[in-house]
Formats: sequence, structure tokens, C-alpha cells
Amino acid sequence: MWKYEQPVTVEFGNKAVDRIVPLARQEGWQRGIIIATPHVVKNGLTERIMSQSEGRITEVFSHISPNPDVADVDACADEIRRGGNGFVIAIGGGSAMDLAKAAASVCMTDESIRSYHGTGKALPHRHLPFIAVPTTAGTGSEVTSVAVLSDHELKKKVPIVSDNFFPDYAVIDPCLTYDMPPYLTACCGIDVLSHAIEGYWSIHHQPVCDACAVYAADLVFRYLLRAWEDPEDAEAREKMCEASVIAGLAFTLPKTTSSHACSFPLTNLYGIPHGEACGLTLDYFVRINGAAEDGRIKELARRLGFKDAAALADGIGELKQKVRLRRDLKDFHLTSEQMDELVVLSHHPNMGNNPVTVTDDILHELYQSLTGSIQ
Amino acid sequence: MWKYEQPVTVEFGNKAVDRIVPLARQEGWQRGIIIATPHVVKNGLTERIMSQSEGRITEVFSHISPNPDVADVDACADEIRRGGNGFVIAIGGGSAMDLAKAAASVCMTDESIRSYHGTGKALPHRHLPFIAVPTTAGTGSEVTSVAVLSDHELKKKVPIVSDNFFPDYAVIDPCLTYDMPPYLTACCGIDVLSHAIEGYWSIHHQPVCDACAVYAADLVFRYLLRAWEDPEDAEAREKMCEASVIAGLAFTLPKTTSSHACSFPLTNLYGIPHGEACGLTLDYFVRINGAAEDGRIKELARRLGFKDAAALADGIGELKQKVRLRRDLKDFHLTSEQMDELVVLSHHPNMGNNPVTVTDDILHELYQSLTGSIQ
Ligand SMILES: NC(=O)c1ccc[n+]([C@@H]2O[C@H](COP(=O)([O-])OP(=O)(O)OC[C@H]3O[C@@H](n4cnc5c(N)ncnc54)[C@H](O)[C@@H]3O)[C@@H](O)[C@H]2O)c1
Ligand SMILES: NC(=O)c1ccc[n+]([C@@H]2O[C@H](COP(=O)([O-])OP(=O)(O)OC[C@H]3O[C@@H](n4cnc5c(N)ncnc54)[C@H](O)[C@@H]3O)[C@@H](O)[C@H]2O)c1
Ligand SMILES: [Zn+2]
Ligand SMILES: [Zn+2]
Repeated sequence: MWKYEQPVTVEFGNKAVDRIVPLARQEGWQRGIIIATPHVVKNGLTERIMSQSEGRITEVFSHISPNPDVADVDACADEIRRGGNGFVIAIGGGSAMDLAKAAASVCMTDESIRSYHGTGKALPHRHLPFIAVPTTAGTGSEVTSVAVLSDHELKKKVPIVSDNFFPDYAVIDPCLTYDMPPYLTACCGIDVLSHAIEGYWSIHHQPVCDACAVYAADLVFRYLLRAWEDPEDAEAREKMCEASVIAGLAFTLPKTTSSHACSFPLTNLYGIPHGEACGLTLDYFVRINGAAEDGRIKELARRLGFKDAAALADGIGELKQKVRLRRDLKDFHLTSEQMDELVVLSHHPNMGNNPVTVTDDILHELYQSLTGSIQ
Repeated sequence: MWKYEQPVTVEFGNKAVDRIVPLARQEGWQRGIIIATPHVVKNGLTERIMSQSEGRITEVFSHISPNPDVADVDACADEIRRGGNGFVIAIGGGSAMDLAKAAASVCMTDESIRSYHGTGKALPHRHLPFIAVPTTAGTGSEVTSVAVLSDHELKKKVPIVSDNFFPDYAVIDPCLTYDMPPYLTACCGIDVLSHAIEGYWSIHHQPVCDACAVYAADLVFRYLLRAWEDPEDAEAREKMCEASVIAGLAFTLPKTTSSHACSFPLTNLYGIPHGEACGLTLDYFVRINGAAEDGRIKELARRLGFKDAAALADGIGELKQKVRLRRDLKDFHLTSEQMDELVVLSHHPNMGNNPVTVTDDILHELYQSLTGSIQ
């Protein structure tokens, strides 16, 4: 049995930002707050949207940094409560969208988001009307039910999943991604590839998401390098935005698996950006899963123009190299204690979605190969 | 700019029919009516669902024949009004689902569906809660906003499109398709292929639907023959059901184009079943569109494992031959007046969605090649 639902209405196109105010007007939403990454405050976008809004959007919250912290969510929720805001517009990368999703939901309670972060407690089924506007082509958060939050105090980074988190609208404007610098483009692009491939092989995989996964992964192989080489390549940016949202559709129901599970401690302990952290282990897991599995990964490889799983893994390695992403952890000179810690922390719940059981041995071998302790 | 929305929740799997009653219970729906094709009344399915329902489903309407007539929709809507029904379960092929969609919507007015059939008048935005349960792998109607109705009196067959027509749930149970005879399997299978290919090349094409189109078309090439050869081939039936629903997602937003436009008069005047009628012209339009277009059809062909558009067209021809579908209209011994009539009636609104302008000359050549007047 499988289930498919996709409650988010997507509007996509160059200049789609100009749809934000008309959508809010059409829905009759009042007293909006923009929750935005600082760079779109600086570049004048938030100002422009507010001035179009004829008083409908009254506030901006931009205390956002990568890997948003639960404390920032609580601060944002407080601001929403204080302002009596009636709807939320999130503009930014995954960090801004995830913080905003959590705030737009927890603000309807009188609790802290900490009560729901890694505790298994379900958020009540209420949230403020919500428009998500990505400025990176990466997370797909604009169409997912996931918000990844960190608790830097407790040293944990975990996703919260809630039907509350599906935005009402995703407004995707490729022009907003033109100012992503190459390294951010690369990190986010490999995140897209991880979403597609992990959604495809997740034990909860299902055909509609498979269709999206194949399509999105193919776009990354064809357009990421171009977007990295020339940030103003309009076609490449558009295709990477398509890839990002379609990969979001591909993983939000099946969920992510091994590479995302490993990424959380890699980001948390060593500050590696999310997409780069996922990419670090992606080709390794293509080999692990490809060898053990029932032919589905070979099929994916074939559809992407590769001979088999090994060739797909090689292709991922080459792509990482071309866009100058980290391919190992050698610079960190990890001690064996640190490697043990990574092994322990990689047993994150998402690991359970991997089609092959990932043992400590597998993880030790993975981290040894990444640190160069074996070759 | 493109838009994606998909308001139908899909539940898919062998024995998914057993989900119907729990879904209605969960939603708190009362006084249901089943609108079902006669064969599922005969085989006891409607009886079984009613007996599971603890009085929640109280009626069956099964006055349904292929290419449902507006008069039947009105009769069904009357029965719903009389019974004070609170929700609708449609079980059957496209004919049952389309009739039920229209009835579940027009019953909320005091009008005849004729007021909305080919008139451009929009249905009011209200409909009874609705579960669609396909018994063919063909139309994808369980996830579309389309109901195709005929007015046999006025000799017209046209689709009505309305957001009202999106079912609340699509419950897809491949087991329900095991009793489709091979000819029905073939007709419906080619319908799926037409939906995928036409959705892909429609002037309203967009990437999420493209992803679905490629995936669905590929499944048809791989599994239709198997399902045709062995109706109990569980894997082939499941894959064709996947293909059908995913092709439904592929065309409901971009809409169908040339082959569907031509199919309406072919069905109406010569009684050719819907899918077979679409298939009759599909390879022809692959050649027309492939020659003129910007490489997108070559790309589709390549993704489906064909060298180019011509090879894809050949592949469609071979598939039709293998599943013993009509490949021409020679048996009908059409007069030139009849061919002229087909040309006129093929200028159906959906023709406007074709990427190449289809002129009278093109249509004359098409029908001449199908009737053997030219070779
Ligand atoms: N919710 C989900 O479904 C989901 C999925 C994957 C990852 N995530 C999470 O999302 C976060 C990563 O998001 P991200 O990769 O989009 O990066 P990000 O949001 O963390 O942004 C990284 C940096 O880039 C800046 N930035 C954003 N857009 C820019 C642009 N157009 N030009 C220049 N600078 C820009 C930001 O201000 C920030 O400083 C992680 O916390 C990750 O765990 C969430
Ligand atoms: N709404 C849409 O999106 C959409 C799309 C394409 C076509 N259509 C329309 O749908 C209709 C065609 O639907 P269809 O191809 O599903 O056929 P159908 O519903 O017309 O059924 C054809 C015949 O097969 C029988 N049948 C159905 N399921 C069976 C089964 N499992 N075993 C044995 N017999 C079975 C029916 O009782 C009927 O006699 C046409 O009117 C067409 O225009 C609608
Ligand atoms: Zn990610
Ligand atoms: Zn059809």
C-alpha cells in the first residue's frame, strides 16, 4: 500500500515573487509577517514586497542563521504572538523556511518548540497561513512537511515532521537564486541530488515520488555544473529550481535515509553545510545499497544514463569534484574517538529508512575511508 | 510561469477497496451512495462494501453505460437529491467515475448538467464528498478535474473541466482490474499512453507533469503487453494501475491535445472505444509534433529508450499491433464526405493545446492515411 498527497499549491516562474501579495489578497489574509534571511532584507526584496502590500504585510523577522536553533524559533513565535500576525511569508533558504514553518505552527500554542523537538510529541493541527519562497535551489522545504531544527545547547540537529508544516503556497522564483555564490550553489545542488536518490531508495518509496526522483536527479546531473560555473545562467538556475522542488516532492513522503542521517552529526560537530554533508556519504551509500538491493538502484542508474550503481556512484563523485565540494574528511584529522562518536550519532532515526541495514561496521568503514585511515 | 496543485489524496494497493469504508468513517460522512458500473454490482463488490459500512452507505446507482450521457447524469443527480445522500463513491471505469463526478456536483444545484456541457458555464464551487475507485487502468479520472460526457441527442462528446471534479480520495486497487478482458486492457492501456504523451507535449506542459508523463509512458511500454497476455499477472496489473494514475497526474493540469481531440468524433460517430480512438492517431501526431518541435519530443523518446520521435512513433505502432488494436479505419469504408466531417469535428477545443497548429490539410492527410486513400 502507498499513499500520495501533496497539499501545497506551487507557483513557479521568473518574477513569481510578484505573486506573493496577490495570493495573500486573494485569500483575504491580513497582518502578515515576513520571516526572511538577512540577505533579502539587505537587497531590498522584503521592502519591495511590503510596499506592494498596501499595509497587508506589517513586519519583518530576520534573526536567522544557518541551521536554525530552537531558541530562534521561540523568539520568532513570540514576535508573531505579540504582533497578532495572521499569516507568514518565509523567504530564504531551508534555514529561513524551516524556522518559519515551526514558528507559524508553535505560535498557535503557548509552548516552546523544544517540547516538540526530538520528543515525538505531535504539534496540534493548527498553523498560520503560510507562503514559502525559496532563495536557494536545495532543500525543497517549500513543499515538504519537514522542518530541520538544531538545539545547539543540547548538541542535536533533528527534523520535526508535521502535516502542519506543508505550506499553503510555494512561490518559486529562479531569479532569487542568481545571487547564490558558487559554493552555496554546489552544496544546495548536492542536497537536491541526495533528496532525489534517498527518496527513491527509502523503504517508504512509492511510484509517484519515484517519478519525481528520477526526473529531479537527471536535472542535477545536467544543470548543476552550469549553474555553478555561471550564476547568471538563467536556464541552469531555472532547471535547478525545478530539480529542487521536484526532489522535495520526491522525498517528503518517503523521507530521507542514510546520507541525511550521517549529515546531521557532520554538520553539528564539524560545521559542514547541510548539502555538502549529505553529499559526503551519498556515493558510498549508492554502492552499499546498489550491491545489496533488488535491482531498483540499477534501474535508477540506467534511467540517469549510467550503466549500473557503481557508475552512478562514480558519477556523483565526479560531480562533487567538478563543483569543488569536499570528498573526504581528511582536513579534520579526526581521532578514533571522534570517528566512534560519528558512528554513534549517525544512527539517527532516518537511518531506519535505508533499504539496507546500516551496521556499525559499515559506518566505521565509511568514516575510515573518508578520513583516509583505510584506502 | 507554471502552477502545480494536486488536491486528491491517493491510496493505492492490492485490497485497497477495504479502505473505502474506513475513509468515510474517518471523515464522518453519512448516507453514502455508490455509483457503480453494472459489473461490480454483479460480482458482489458493491454488496460487500455496503455490508461493511454499518448503514453508512445506503444506495447503489448503476445505470451507467460507456460514454455516459447527460441524461444519465441528470437521472443520477435526481436520485442523489431524492435520497438526501451525503457522499458519493464512484466505482468503475472512466464512464462511471465521470458520470459520478458530474452528478456529485450538479446535484447541489437545481439545474441539468446540460447547462454546463460544452457551454463554458462554470459549475458552482460545491460538490458532495467523493471517493473515486477505478476498475480499469486507463482514464486516470480518479485524480483529474475532468468529466467527459456525451449528449447523444446533440451528437456531441465533450469534457467538462471543473475544480469541483477533483475527488477527495482516489482508492486504487489493482485487483479490481484482473477481470478486464484483453481488448479493454489494450484500449485503456493506450489511453494511458496518450495521456502521458499528450500531457508532455501540451502547450501547457510543466515539469512536475513532465516527470509523471515520462514515468507513466515508460511503464506502459514495459507492462501493457504482459497485462494483455495474462490478465492475472499481478505485477503487470499493478504497474498499469500505477501508470494510469501517474498519467492522470501528468495530463490533468496541461490537458490533452490532438489525439484526444480526434478521438471524440471517432468514438461518437463510429463507436470506437475511447482509448483505441486516441491510439489511432497518437503515432501520427508523434511524427507531426516531433518534426516541428524544439527537441522536447526527441528528449521524451530518448528517455523512453527510443532513438528519436520517429522511432517512438514506430514503437507505438508496434505496441498497438501486439495488443491487437485497430491501426487504421479501412473497415469503415469512409466516404469523402465522412472524412470531411471528421476533419471538421476534430477541431475540438483540446486541439488548441497541441504544440503544432493542426491545419485542415494535416487532418485530411491523417484521415486519408488511416482510410488507405493515400499510402
Ligand atoms: N525542510 C526540509 O525539507 C529540509 C530539507 C533539506 C535540508 N533542510 C535544512 O535546510 C537548511 C539548509 O538550507 P539551505 O541549504 O537552503 O541554506 P540556508 O538556508 O542555511 O542558507 C545558507 C546561507 O546562504 C544564504 N543565502 C540564502 N539564499 C541566498 C541567495 N539567494 N544568495 C546568497 N545567499 C543566500 C543564507 O542567508 C545563509 O547565510 C539546513 O538546516 C538543512 O538541514 C531542510
Ligand atoms: N475524466 C477523465 O479524466 C477521462 C480521461 C480519459 C477518458 N475519459 C472517459 O472515460 C471513458 C472511458 O473509460 P474506460 O476506458 O475506463 O471504460 P468505461 O468506463 O467506458 O468501461 C468500458 C466497459 O468496461 C466495463 N468494465 C469496467 N471495468 C471493468 C473490469 N474491471 N472488468 C470488466 N469490465 C469492466 C464497463 O462496465 C464498461 O462496459 C470515456 O468516456 C472517456 O472519454 C475520462
Ligand atoms: Zn537535505
Ligand atoms: Zn483519455
